[in-house]
Amino acid sequence: MANQQNGGSKKLWGGRFSEATAASVEAFSSSIDYDSRLYKYDIAGSKAHAEALAANGVLTQDELTAIVTGLTEIENEIESGSFVFKPELEDIHMNIEKALIDRIGPAGAKLHSGRSRNDQVAVDFKLYLRDQCDALVGLLDDIRRAFVVLSRKYIGRVMPGYTHMQRAQPVQISHHMLAYYEMFSRDRDRIIDCRKRLNLSPLGCAAMAGTGLPVDRMRTSAALGFSGVTANSIDTSGDRDYAIEFASCCTLIQLHLSRLSEELVLWSTEEFNFVNISDKFCTGSSIMPQKKNPDIPELIRGKSGRVVGSLMSLITLMKGLPLTYNRDMQEDKEPVFDAVDTVSASLAIMAELLGNLSFNTEVLAKATESGCMTATDLADYLVMKNVPFREAHGIVGRAVAYCLDNSKELADLSLEELKQFSGEIESDVFAVLSVEGSVNSRNSIGGTGFKRVEEAVTVAEKQVGIG
Amino acid sequence: MANQQNGGSKKLWGGRFSEATAASVEAFSSSIDYDSRLYKYDIAGSKAHAEALAANGVLTQDELTAIVTGLTEIENEIESGSFVFKPELEDIHMNIEKALIDRIGPAGAKLHSGRSRNDQVAVDFKLYLRDQCDALVGLLDDIRRAFVVLSRKYIGRVMPGYTHMQRAQPVQISHHMLAYYEMFSRDRDRIIDCRKRLNLSPLGCAAMAGTGLPVDRMRTSAALGFSGVTANSIDTSGDRDYAIEFASCCTLIQLHLSRLSEELVLWSTEEFNFVNISDKFCTGSSIMPQKKNPDIPELIRGKSGRVVGSLMSLITLMKGLPLTYNRDMQEDKEPVFDAVDTVSASLAIMAELLGNLSFNTEVLAKATESGCMTATDLADYLVMKNVPFREAHGIVGRAVAYCLDNSKELADLSLEELKQFSGEIESDVFAVLSVEGSVNSRNSIGGTGFKRVEEAVTVAEKQVGIG
Amino acid sequence: MANQQNGGSKKLWGGRFSEATAASVEAFSSSIDYDSRLYKYDIAGSKAHAEALAANGVLTQDELTAIVTGLTEIENEIESGSFVFKPELEDIHMNIEKALIDRIGPAGAKLHSGRSRNDQVAVDFKLYLRDQCDALVGLLDDIRRAFVVLSRKYIGRVMPGYTHMQRAQPVQISHHMLAYYEMFSRDRDRIIDCRKRLNLSPLGCAAMAGTGLPVDRMRTSAALGFSGVTANSIDTSGDRDYAIEFASCCTLIQLHLSRLSEELVLWSTEEFNFVNISDKFCTGSSIMPQKKNPDIPELIRGKSGRVVGSLMSLITLMKGLPLTYNRDMQEDKEPVFDAVDTVSASLAIMAELLGNLSFNTEVLAKATESGCMTATDLADYLVMKNVPFREAHGIVGRAVAYCLDNSKELADLSLEELKQFSGEIESDVFAVLSVEGSVNSRNSIGGTGFKRVEEAVTVAEKQVGIG
Amino acid sequence: MANQQNGGSKKLWGGRFSEATAASVEAFSSSIDYDSRLYKYDIAGSKAHAEALAANGVLTQDELTAIVTGLTEIENEIESGSFVFKPELEDIHMNIEKALIDRIGPAGAKLHSGRSRNDQVAVDFKLYLRDQCDALVGLLDDIRRAFVVLSRKYIGRVMPGYTHMQRAQPVQISHHMLAYYEMFSRDRDRIIDCRKRLNLSPLGCAAMAGTGLPVDRMRTSAALGFSGVTANSIDTSGDRDYAIEFASCCTLIQLHLSRLSEELVLWSTEEFNFVNISDKFCTGSSIMPQKKNPDIPELIRGKSGRVVGSLMSLITLMKGLPLTYNRDMQEDKEPVFDAVDTVSASLAIMAELLGNLSFNTEVLAKATESGCMTATDLADYLVMKNVPFREAHGIVGRAVAYCLDNSKELADLSLEELKQFSGEIESDVFAVLSVEGSVNSRNSIGGTGFKRVEEAVTVAEKQVGIG
Repeated sequence: MANQQNGGSKKLWGGRFSEATAASVEAFSSSIDYDSRLYKYDIAGSKAHAEALAANGVLTQDELTAIVTGLTEIENEIESGSFVFKPELEDIHMNIEKALIDRIGPAGAKLHSGRSRNDQVAVDFKLYLRDQCDALVGLLDDIRRAFVVLSRKYIGRVMPGYTHMQRAQPVQISHHMLAYYEMFSRDRDRIIDCRKRLNLSPLGCAAMAGTGLPVDRMRTSAALGFSGVTANSIDTSGDRDYAIEFASCCTLIQLHLSRLSEELVLWSTEEFNFVNISDKFCTGSSIMPQKKNPDIPELIRGKSGRVVGSLMSLITLMKGLPLTYNRDMQEDKEPVFDAVDTVSASLAIMAELLGNLSFNTEVLAKATESGCMTATDLADYLVMKNVPFREAHGIVGRAVAYCLDNSKELADLSLEELKQFSGEIESDVFAVLSVEGSVNSRNSIGGTGFKRVEEAVTVAEKQVGIG
Repeated sequence: MANQQNGGSKKLWGGRFSEATAASVEAFSSSIDYDSRLYKYDIAGSKAHAEALAANGVLTQDELTAIVTGLTEIENEIESGSFVFKPELEDIHMNIEKALIDRIGPAGAKLHSGRSRNDQVAVDFKLYLRDQCDALVGLLDDIRRAFVVLSRKYIGRVMPGYTHMQRAQPVQISHHMLAYYEMFSRDRDRIIDCRKRLNLSPLGCAAMAGTGLPVDRMRTSAALGFSGVTANSIDTSGDRDYAIEFASCCTLIQLHLSRLSEELVLWSTEEFNFVNISDKFCTGSSIMPQKKNPDIPELIRGKSGRVVGSLMSLITLMKGLPLTYNRDMQEDKEPVFDAVDTVSASLAIMAELLGNLSFNTEVLAKATESGCMTATDLADYLVMKNVPFREAHGIVGRAVAYCLDNSKELADLSLEELKQFSGEIESDVFAVLSVEGSVNSRNSIGGTGFKRVEEAVTVAEKQVGIG
Repeated sequence: MANQQNGGSKKLWGGRFSEATAASVEAFSSSIDYDSRLYKYDIAGSKAHAEALAANGVLTQDELTAIVTGLTEIENEIESGSFVFKPELEDIHMNIEKALIDRIGPAGAKLHSGRSRNDQVAVDFKLYLRDQCDALVGLLDDIRRAFVVLSRKYIGRVMPGYTHMQRAQPVQISHHMLAYYEMFSRDRDRIIDCRKRLNLSPLGCAAMAGTGLPVDRMRTSAALGFSGVTANSIDTSGDRDYAIEFASCCTLIQLHLSRLSEELVLWSTEEFNFVNISDKFCTGSSIMPQKKNPDIPELIRGKSGRVVGSLMSLITLMKGLPLTYNRDMQEDKEPVFDAVDTVSASLAIMAELLGNLSFNTEVLAKATESGCMTATDLADYLVMKNVPFREAHGIVGRAVAYCLDNSKELADLSLEELKQFSGEIESDVFAVLSVEGSVNSRNSIGGTGFKRVEEAVTVAEKQVGIG
Repeated sequence: MANQQNGGSKKLWGGRFSEATAASVEAFSSSIDYDSRLYKYDIAGSKAHAEALAANGVLTQDELTAIVTGLTEIENEIESGSFVFKPELEDIHMNIEKALIDRIGPAGAKLHSGRSRNDQVAVDFKLYLRDQCDALVGLLDDIRRAFVVLSRKYIGRVMPGYTHMQRAQPVQISHHMLAYYEMFSRDRDRIIDCRKRLNLSPLGCAAMAGTGLPVDRMRTSAALGFSGVTANSIDTSGDRDYAIEFASCCTLIQLHLSRLSEELVLWSTEEFNFVNISDKFCTGSSIMPQKKNPDIPELIRGKSGRVVGSLMSLITLMKGLPLTYNRDMQEDKEPVFDAVDTVSASLAIMAELLGNLSFNTEVLAKATESGCMTATDLADYLVMKNVPFREAHGIVGRAVAYCLDNSKELADLSLEELKQFSGEIESDVFAVLSVEGSVNSRNSIGGTGFKRVEEAVTVAEKQVGIG
């Protein structure tokens, strides 16, 4: 027992150590700064574990009561801000356990029977992520709802549709809004799949080999709302798939937001002038008094960097790690926290911004009238007159070149001018050359036709619980 | 029609262009070098589209027959290697369409009615990825089976379990093998979810607004085995979520392989000497005659870089792109192809290697006998004698320090020596200090106890269809 | 010698192996598909090595002559396309060495004395990268020259300058072009630093410990044009810093190109209409006859993904690798090759495109007249009248709000209207409210004032050797 | 002036705004939480700017004095912790400027003349990074020194050198330590190049077009210790190359640390047992009393993820951004701060750990005696007897196979046994088969021979100022 006489370690785990941990090491390796946010999951996990120990006689009922009461008091202290976290106790798990022992004595020292910190880390992190999945589903529903509201509001109003940022075909504003609705709906699906996959209890895997003490894994799993238990203790203690999958889902959400943001920035330019974001969602310049900047979409677009960075961080971290737990894996939390915080805040403020956004419908309508945007309609018209599509495409291409040379639009051409390009063109052509005719014709499922979009809005309204 | 006189574009899309495309532009933008691998999906999509056009009278039955026959001939030519791909025709879609027109004339020129290249790109890519998902499930099943075979083979044999690369607790070799079984089973689940999400037909969204021609989307979807159609044409033409989700799944697979590879490399060192990889799976050195190198695991570990790189490539590509299609998105295919090829080849050769791997069971058994690996068992023993765990942990820590100082193992200590550390220790302690006793005791679900692992192997055998 | 009787390995390195390498292993681990592009560097390295061996008597002059002649013949065969690469010989090094032995016999078998493949890999790769650095400097000079030409061409012409994509202040087109000149000049500097750092010869480090044979490292270094030799053989055989640094430089170049591309795409929209890219640098749509798409900038922007992917691939690859060489490092070449090819092709075609680009100077000039872009000038005017800047900023902000409410520009306001906002404003204000006055005033170094830009163009012309 | 009556914006930039900024927007876009760490650079930049304004009469001497004194007081308050940062003032620049105005009145409101926040952001960030470059050079020197100390300490002691993690050739411990010395020396070079490139003053570029007020850029540049001024104001306001280049340098440093960490983790295993890290640099297990874990190297290895993540974050952020400043770029700071903090802390604690590390020289020496590690020496011996290397390699390979079959080492074979493999082998062979003979022979520059390493240590000692 020489080590005690030599001023050995005072850590809960320090029995075999003959020197105290260096202060620099404590500072470098402590995680309490960020993992304290897991406190309520740690406490819930400890309560479930204690109940399982008591159920099999490892704890008496009195000890169980003392533990549960003590943990509840600690939780209250943390929530009220009066709990003092100690870096030298390394992490949230040791901070809480030590506080419990200080408070209730020997019973507290029994809590860690049949359990390791790896168990706690995994339980805490999974419970946290499960909650975050639920919260993200809520936030995704909010933004989906915002798009549905805009879709209903602008139904029947047109705007140019783009490919390659070139005006392509006239579409409904609502149709464009519903494109984002679909994107965020897929994100929702992915989060739900991620939640399903992570919702298996790791508790009871102990260090990595399982435990020999009578801890009923099914019992703790049920108490914590897991849908089952993990199947292999070695896998469990080395697994961070769920963090990476979750970060991948977050990355896709933020990518979708980056695309929306790009459009909002473009639409807010003097050149496009398609939307107006209310003053309270913009900021000014420190030097140029006339500026009104779309800061929120810019920031959200920029924040795609940090979410991708978090994903990359987690992937790099896990690359080439042997089984099971390695201390490297402590680095799993901050990237996930940062990704969650970023995505959640971005979704929330974007949904709010969408409620403070108005489309300049006249500008948009006018924009559909130039750029020969009904050229495809003319080609389709010829196809229905039995002109092979490739030939029709060429005919229309030449008509467009003629328009460009003469600064005209297709709808401006006389029948005579049109007939120069194909004898098949007759007076019924003008119906298809109008913006309304064009939009109205695209009634394939998922198309921009008025009927289709009306249907789509109605379906979406039901899905998000409007009306 | 000035552009024709001016030597304008000869492209299928060139009607409005007054200059031919620069050769450098053709070379830079052509994708035929890599998208030719999609030919069979492109042809299947075209056949389904042609049938839908015919069903609604846009094509006659004769035209349909000509198209289908022509496409089949082209497919045969491609498969036999006699088809000549032309870079100036840009991509697989234009190469096939042009060949069809050359072969069957005007009917071929009708095929593209109500369809855009965006449709084709998305259909081809999704059909390809669907097949790749199925193939990956097969490869994952192969490697899972290889782990099950090893688990059965080595059942009852022990090895050190590690955390922090330090010997932690004795475990069964089979238990360790089944950890990988679980990891690749999760990968399988993710691939299946990815497949489910991507299996919606984009066909009929046309350029981005839907089509006005009578193309029945449900019909083409059913013909191609999709489970339904996408809901919004604007979303559809700008969507590459499925490529990113697929690449994320690939990344996790390769990360798992990198961890396995790391272990194989370590286990193959002279220092560990835990496994033997047969000569035919190793290579030698050009300069050092004695070397036998574990090249395959090293390469697989290294290849995690390229799969991650592909994922990052796709994410960077999509960041900040406005809707809908932008030509940037042509860059989606090569990273996906490279990820698929890498992961598939790595899974296949690793499964083969696992069949050429033997564990040095004597070395492994011996390794479990040092390092005080049953220290936790002693602590658990004390817990069952009602010593609070934290106190038990300290007692054992001191016993371990004593062992280190005296170059002994816990199992070597006499009862007298052990009693120095706790009066609770009695002669029944020796059962728990043995490796067999330790392993046997860990019978929590997912633990390394003999009974548990036997169960787990049996379950896994059923899942992979063995026995 | 059992292994020979048992059909052991036939590899050059196979003496100790008792089984032939599996065909799947050969296929998986062969690098000849891509490293054959290093042939001329491999041959140059071998010649230098042979000369050093001969200088110290390890080879006779006759042997040296045979080797050099043989290598030259092999080089000619490779260049003429008649050399047959064999995958079972793994890589370019073994392919060439084996061909040499087949051709000249025992002298060829002496070439590898005092050398390892690690030496060859590093020499080949460094010589290749050194050439690529030089080529990139050339390509960067080409694109810098293109910007200088545009700067000269449009000198005196104005356009809106932007921050947050909002019109900020009028600037000269030339000034904007020179911004890119600066960006690519920094890239040039970085490449030169990278070249300097990598240009140290690895030859003679052998496997990893140095060689005991008399190979004069200074001699081979000088023969190959290196500026010196690496200092530590263990470091050398495990070093890939140069590949990562090179890929970082490539990433920054492609990021710069992505920003330029974004601007070209925006400027080509109907909404901006700032530039015209000639037809031969654009392509059309398969379905929409009117489309003219800026494909080249889009593709270049998209290709930033693959360059970033290559960088991430290399970083992931090297993470956590113990010293020295590990086979993982074979994965270093493809990402670098892909990055070089992508960046080189992108720079070249962008330089060409810049020569086929024209600015719509009237549209640009008109655009500077709206958006109250001289607001800062008005504030500065007030500052020179001793109004504190923050007060001036507020005054101008209110004047701008007044303009917005009344659909006016600052330059349209009467003196009376202006005086409403500040009594300090006098009739001399109109000089500063004009676009010309505004641009002309910004004569700080690096500013957009006419004098400054004229100077900057002249300096740049000298730097790129124009005039 | 309706906006004032309508409770418009109260921001310093809010003149044209008719609504107050939403609280959610303020919270989302504020950067004061993290950019407050730039305070001293912001104040230094403001002082230099004020002096330049005064030099040209924009400020009076009294105003200058008031500003400089006010700023100094604010700096003192910040350093003493009494300054209250306000999130609604967005960032460090506005917080300080507002505090100055509150403190000294109108003179404070004049400070921002001829300057924009873009100027301040760039000045602050560059000055910060310049200091960080200097600090990193210091930390790199510390760790280089630690390797030199170890090299001197263990000179003459041998260990196995590895390729593919297989024992390759015996080397000196000192030689291996100096490999890291070289790696960190290259990092030092890169940081110095990065510093050189970023050390150009952006001040005076104003919003993006330069300023019309008489601000002498050369004067402010000199006052702040820059080596010159940036050449183009548009480039300057949109440039973050320096942040990316800096993060690239950080990534390489952390990759080097990850490789060293991997080796320390391996060397600390029971299987290798090559080093001993003192107790105060390790931690224990919460459940396994016998564990002593190499946490510090593990954490450092894991932290490579976050540094790579930061680099990826910055790259993603800048991809596709049009010139000049976009608000996205506010996201540049946190990844850089995190990378600096991580790399600095990792370097510092690793240098400390190296001082608490001892090599188990007996274990290492013993390890060089097995694995036929002098096989290359035997081949070289044959080469010097004029056996072609490839033939020699084969001879030795067969001798090694014989050793493996008979559980012997090459040095254990009798001359008779050796002669079985080649008649050229004579009794002088035993000198080259010994570890000492092997190491001693490798006297090429950079090799592991005793003379070479002694030289290398001496050179390194001079470089780091030892002895």
